[in-house]
Amino acid sequence: MALDPGAVSGAGVTVADVGEDALVRAVVARLAVASTTTGPARVLVGPGDDAAVLDLDGPLVTSTDTLVQDVDFRLDWSSGYEVGRKAAVQVLADVEAMGAVPVGLVLALVVPGSTPVSWCLDLADGLAAEAGAAGAAVLGGDVADGGALVLTGTSSGVLVGPGGPVGRGGARPGDVVVLGPAGAPLGSSAAGLAVLLAGAGAGAGAAGAGAAGRVAAVHRSPVVDHTAGPRARDAGARAMIDVSDGLVRDATRVARASGVVLALDLASPALRPSADLHEVAGLLGADAQEWVLTSGEEHAMLAVLPPGRALPDGFTPVGQVGPPEDDGWTGVVVDGVRRTDAGGWVHYPS
Amino acid sequence: MALDPGAVSGAGVTVADVGEDALVRAVVARLAVASTTTGPARVLVGPGDDAAVLDLDGPLVTSTDTLVQDVDFRLDWSSGYEVGRKAAVQVLADVEAMGAVPVGLVLALVVPGSTPVSWCLDLADGLAAEAGAAGAAVLGGDVADGGALVLTGTSSGVLVGPGGPVGRGGARPGDVVVLGPAGAPLGSSAAGLAVLLAGAGAGAGAAGAGAAGRVAAVHRSPVVDHTAGPRARDAGARAMIDVSDGLVRDATRVARASGVVLALDLASPALRPSADLHEVAGLLGADAQEWVLTSGEEHAMLAVLPPGRALPDGFTPVGQVGPPEDDGWTGVVVDGVRRTDAGGWVHYPS
Repeated sequence: MALDPGAVSGAGVTVADVGEDALVRAVVARLAVASTTTGPARVLVGPGDDAAVLDLDGPLVTSTDTLVQDVDFRLDWSSGYEVGRKAAVQVLADVEAMGAVPVGLVLALVVPGSTPVSWCLDLADGLAAEAGAAGAAVLGGDVADGGALVLTGTSSGVLVGPGGPVGRGGARPGDVVVLGPAGAPLGSSAAGLAVLLAGAGAGAGAAGAGAAGRVAAVHRSPVVDHTAGPRARDAGARAMIDVSDGLVRDATRVARASGVVLALDLASPALRPSADLHEVAGLLGADAQEWVLTSGEEHAMLAVLPPGRALPDGFTPVGQVGPPEDDGWTGVVVDGVRRTDAGGWVHYPS
Repeated sequence: MALDPGAVSGAGVTVADVGEDALVRAVVARLAVASTTTGPARVLVGPGDDAAVLDLDGPLVTSTDTLVQDVDFRLDWSSGYEVGRKAAVQVLADVEAMGAVPVGLVLALVVPGSTPVSWCLDLADGLAAEAGAAGAAVLGGDVADGGALVLTGTSSGVLVGPGGPVGRGGARPGDVVVLGPAGAPLGSSAAGLAVLLAGAGAGAGAAGAGAAGRVAAVHRSPVVDHTAGPRARDAGARAMIDVSDGLVRDATRVARASGVVLALDLASPALRPSADLHEVAGLLGADAQEWVLTSGEEHAMLAVLPPGRALPDGFTPVGQVGPPEDDGWTGVVVDGVRRTDAGGWVHYPS
């Protein structure tokens, strides 16, 4: 079917109505405004050819991440715009967690033919807005038919200046564990998910206003600081990870990769549940502190610094690094107690 | 469930049985042998951290591509190994079609919990084998739960030496249209699909031996020449695309992007149906010549060279470039006749 490009986003027009080529043209037109980058890269070829081309001022850092309908997002909870923003936040955080400056991303979209074109354009807008906020260009993508929405983003970042990437394995006994800034207190995403689940069936509006509404909004689309990772690298971080699957689970990954113990201190201001978390936990009979320790999709940066270093802007201490315990155990202790149940998010829970 | 890593691939063991972490560990272990690259890049960080890090000897070329179960492959037709090889071929071809030397790829895998772990390990083996054949490292990936298998690969390549990428828009009147080598004659993938569809329900074995078996094997896993794209760039190609959606459809993209007419000549040896295609077409009552013109997933390189240039190794002429027709029309003509129905593969056909 040949449609006026201006007509593709009309009410009720689906992906199957307009077909692959018109959908791609309409999406690319929405991305164009964001397809430049001002960081350590120049876009030589953007969307529309076989591949994109980028000239980089340093080593490439790249990562891929997938969002699946009804696993990672629900259409009755989130708009296309929110899902697009979330996809960008998530995949950019992985390169930022290496200390890289994000410069680009590509998106592969599996989309059922019955999906409204307007939803796809909202998705493109959200993706472009968040990528733009990070200084990254949307470089291209792919569209395929399938039974459920699947978004796979792949990000590109650049390591600027001297020094290598910040991996997970560099933490040493005596180091300081610090947490970077985020748009909302740690734990908000899990609290928001609980709010949405409690109101499931009643639509997104069920989250309402006040504390419940605020944490639900964080769950739908986390707000992050895209320069926190590079700042921590500049400040000398020797290990880093973003909190995507839960603080304890992600800190355990650093501890195991480094062969150390990460000791978290619940008296740290950044680990104290916010007033919103306390209020929502009270309403739902949940444990606000547990949300702080296990909430995924937060994407705040958890970094490890050598002792005595000045903290990067916006980071606060949350613990210390110690040697393996006497029996050789490595992992995370919370207020002195071994945390063997990491909680947080895992696919195929047993 | 905590399982001995050696046990994850036993008969009947599913992804849900072993869980996300054990699956990822087992897959990464299979990839390790292939995670080095000898081309114009050095792998600084491979799988296992937040992101991979590559030092590149030139501009980055990157593309993403998705395979969806029951749209792009069927489990009763293809092994995990074949699907893994196909995913690598497809996503590497897009960077090769810019003239880039492939150096790496990442894979995001949506996999139902009921999938045998052994299938995933076969997939990893096929992916690693094909990437290795191209000189590319498997740099990392992501695993997520979902209702059907979805594989999204994102490739990285490098433009080596002086000169820019070879896009779709550089063809000029008077240029020569050439087709690169492939492991099988053009049209084999469509013929193989027709064989498999004709025998659907009877399993992959239905394709049998002989011509039908050979074209079915090409459809399951095309065999390509990973250096054909860079060779064409070195030879001075000014436009290029890989035949992924059909010769006419992809040639039309070059013609439109360049504002020219691509005139294909069916007398060209590379466009004459092979004996296998004639045999299978006879059996199925199909048109062998039409398979040559519309078969997707071939991934042979279609390039345009200035007149008088020496052809790159293995390439043969298939046509000429002319100016737009008198009414301004651009596109593909086959033996002098405008081809307005591109055929080939498109999602959401109208």
